[in-house]
Amino acid sequence: MSFDLVLFGGTGDLAWRKLLPALFQAQRHGTLPAGGRIIGVARDDLSDAQYRALIASRFAAVEGDKRPSATEFERFAELLHYVRMDLSQGADYARLAAHLRARGADTVVMYLATAPTLFTTVCEQLGAAGLATPATRVVLEKPLGHDLASNRAINAAVRGVFSERQVFRIDHYLGKPSVQNLLALRFGNALFEPLWRRETVASIEITIAEQLGVEKRGAFYDGTGALRDMVQNHALQLLCAIGMEPPINAHADAIRDEKLKVLRSLKGWTPESLARDVVRGQYAAGQLAGEAVPGYLQEPGVAPGSRTETFVALRTEIANWRWAGVPFYIRTGKRLAAHEAHIAVHFREAPHAIYRTPMGAANRLVIHLQPRDGLALHLFAAGQSQRGPATAAQTLAPVQLDLDFDQRFGRERVGAYERLLLDVIDGRLNLFVRSDEQEAAWRWVEPVLQSWREADERGEGPRPYASGTWGPSAASALVAKSGHSWMEEV
Amino acid sequence: MSFDLVLFGGTGDLAWRKLLPALFQAQRHGTLPAGGRIIGVARDDLSDAQYRALIASRFAAVEGDKRPSATEFERFAELLHYVRMDLSQGADYARLAAHLRARGADTVVMYLATAPTLFTTVCEQLGAAGLATPATRVVLEKPLGHDLASNRAINAAVRGVFSERQVFRIDHYLGKPSVQNLLALRFGNALFEPLWRRETVASIEITIAEQLGVEKRGAFYDGTGALRDMVQNHALQLLCAIGMEPPINAHADAIRDEKLKVLRSLKGWTPESLARDVVRGQYAAGQLAGEAVPGYLQEPGVAPGSRTETFVALRTEIANWRWAGVPFYIRTGKRLAAHEAHIAVHFREAPHAIYRTPMGAANRLVIHLQPRDGLALHLFAAGQSQRGPATAAQTLAPVQLDLDFDQRFGRERVGAYERLLLDVIDGRLNLFVRSDEQEAAWRWVEPVLQSWREADERGEGPRPYASGTWGPSAASALVAKSGHSWMEEV
Repeated sequence: MSFDLVLFGGTGDLAWRKLLPALFQAQRHGTLPAGGRIIGVARDDLSDAQYRALIASRFAAVEGDKRPSATEFERFAELLHYVRMDLSQGADYARLAAHLRARGADTVVMYLATAPTLFTTVCEQLGAAGLATPATRVVLEKPLGHDLASNRAINAAVRGVFSERQVFRIDHYLGKPSVQNLLALRFGNALFEPLWRRETVASIEITIAEQLGVEKRGAFYDGTGALRDMVQNHALQLLCAIGMEPPINAHADAIRDEKLKVLRSLKGWTPESLARDVVRGQYAAGQLAGEAVPGYLQEPGVAPGSRTETFVALRTEIANWRWAGVPFYIRTGKRLAAHEAHIAVHFREAPHAIYRTPMGAANRLVIHLQPRDGLALHLFAAGQSQRGPATAAQTLAPVQLDLDFDQRFGRERVGAYERLLLDVIDGRLNLFVRSDEQEAAWRWVEPVLQSWREADERGEGPRPYASGTWGPSAASALVAKSGHSWMEEV
Repeated sequence: MSFDLVLFGGTGDLAWRKLLPALFQAQRHGTLPAGGRIIGVARDDLSDAQYRALIASRFAAVEGDKRPSATEFERFAELLHYVRMDLSQGADYARLAAHLRARGADTVVMYLATAPTLFTTVCEQLGAAGLATPATRVVLEKPLGHDLASNRAINAAVRGVFSERQVFRIDHYLGKPSVQNLLALRFGNALFEPLWRRETVASIEITIAEQLGVEKRGAFYDGTGALRDMVQNHALQLLCAIGMEPPINAHADAIRDEKLKVLRSLKGWTPESLARDVVRGQYAAGQLAGEAVPGYLQEPGVAPGSRTETFVALRTEIANWRWAGVPFYIRTGKRLAAHEAHIAVHFREAPHAIYRTPMGAANRLVIHLQPRDGLALHLFAAGQSQRGPATAAQTLAPVQLDLDFDQRFGRERVGAYERLLLDVIDGRLNLFVRSDEQEAAWRWVEPVLQSWREADERGEGPRPYASGTWGPSAASALVAKSGHSWMEEV
């Protein structure tokens, strides 16, 4: 099967930091189908040879095992081609079309690694140039809009040219092995199903904590914030995977139908729940790993007095028979105490205590997503021998069953972008987001955005939190109200 | 709390190999209550000093960390006393009584580490000498009889002198940390209860495999066999722990009531089930760890042409609402391929296959009892990335969550006899077997013994199996009939 992969934004950050290295790794692993071309597209006037030289210089900066040897790069460079384009010019698309038609690959992937503001234009131009053939697949990078209306507008423009099954909306979080594994764990193991329900589960926690600040992306981030950047996509996708009903099979639409049902079942917001169940934070200066770090408002590119949130904690519920009443907590933020993402399924306590267990502790299953990728099942066991009066209840000690996926499967697991690019080339849509999912997620976050705009007008901005902490204390209060706590002993 | 521990059989194997080292370890760990005496009793004419010297010479043979230093042994030796007794002579009991009365300890433990044929005599004599006071506890070592009638006779004689709560019937298997942990795991963790039932469990396997042969115990073993030596007590106790309903609390009688219910719920034998569901084996010569080992019939002390079984595999069911129809498989034997004891809970397969899993595999929880002491939860996960046609079902790989109790709690866990002796001194009956349990277990194994006697008369002896294998192939056929297999990948 031959393919052409057209990389719009072919000289940009995403291309050389993520996409081209991922394609190189796929070639190295022998999983990239033979007979492919990678066609970089950008405004610069470059020959194929100059483009290869540019990419070579970028690859030279790659550290460790992932850097290609000279021979390896030479082999990879043979795939690289370049087409200069001004994306607003129809004539340039005609040139691209000629370039592609000369070869007639079985599959043509249009990877839009460009500013999202160009998505509509590029799709329309591709259609006008006759490039939206059934052999074409289009890959869209986030953010796809900044609210429901803009998301709908992009999706409508894309749908005007491509059918839904040609559209691959990337959420690179879904390409992480640990996230792919979520569905395999839930539905490849009969063991979990009896436990996965309101009768057994006390609460479910999704934490995506970063230690990084906004780095060089201050200007972009200031117009986005944590809710759009992390919750609307990654956190809700995790929530769908952990909460969805068993799909009828593992095909893309069966899975996406079930995820959509979860998003549509999310409890709607009320003025009361918006005030009670959402915490917005913004990092102030603080200490991280012993070093002083500046506050968000001191970061380059951030508007003076900005009220953009760098932290969100919220409580929601999936209003269906399986989950009614079970709190789902989401927490994400920058400059937090740890670089750590996990999903913790907190089980209810035993209905009748025969043994004593440590205060407030209960069984939980933790799915570690990063930095390590694994499972931990937290139980209680009889550690030391029982002493003391013969009728005293024995006190159990916490114990933990562990599985480290990197150890189990070897370090050479397939990276997120590598996996997703191969899926695009194979036409496997499972790990991509359908437009109706995306719109449902936007529909659910919109009232939160709206409530914050209103709060801003009243002069109530985000709660400041010191860098290097776990966010505003209101986030702890949020879960404490239901008798829960965040998992922070990592 | 002062105690006197009277060790009948004070110069015997059990005393110096197990009991005195366990008491020494308890002193070393600081768990042996202060103000205690250990009074060795035997026929030899020894002074306290000579008894101490004898024990010192035995301890000198102990290997590694468990050997006392000179100072440590000196401290331990202070506890040791000796009383010469002929156990058939009433006058000698009067001397013992005088010895004990001179001190008047709060608790007096009579540990009968003697031949079981003496149990009745010793108890009656203790009673006659006025030594069955409320302060007295009596410890009985197995075997307590060789069938229901003889077990009942011993229990009746003991009950004539002591009340049930004064009687500590040792099953040293119950003192193993991993076995104590069974109840803590089941009832200290809410997680397991929804899984612990016929809807979820396909079968439960109990394996106690030894690599040793009969060693120097040929004459004893030849009159006993694996069913009496391992199944009637250890294996059935494990079956009770894994199968019992939640007790109302963790007190001894609450637990023993539930174990008794399990034993009474064991499916009764029929001529058909005896023929179909029980496999009797006897080891023949073979290879073990690369060395040739003799067959059972060549062992010293074994009667020529003996039909004593060294291997039993059987299938039973617990006929109650929780377990009806779920096979419980028990397998135990000598000269098997591994030294390994475990309980494996084999879960049912997923009701609807979305992923492909390795042939015949399903989730299972393995409780490793020896040589290592831990838990392993066997699941499936997405290992490598999925490739191939977009609609093909992904194949999952087996993965394993592990917990090693020795690692978790440190190597210095309390040994079985140490634990049980401290429990006797504290008066904690949880890990001791009540007479009605024991009788119910004998009642259940009797038809098996009877069927073997009948088979012997027909000239059908045990099935021979080569040493170093997993027993007769009929044991595999036994589980294969229900689509199961023994866990043997250790």
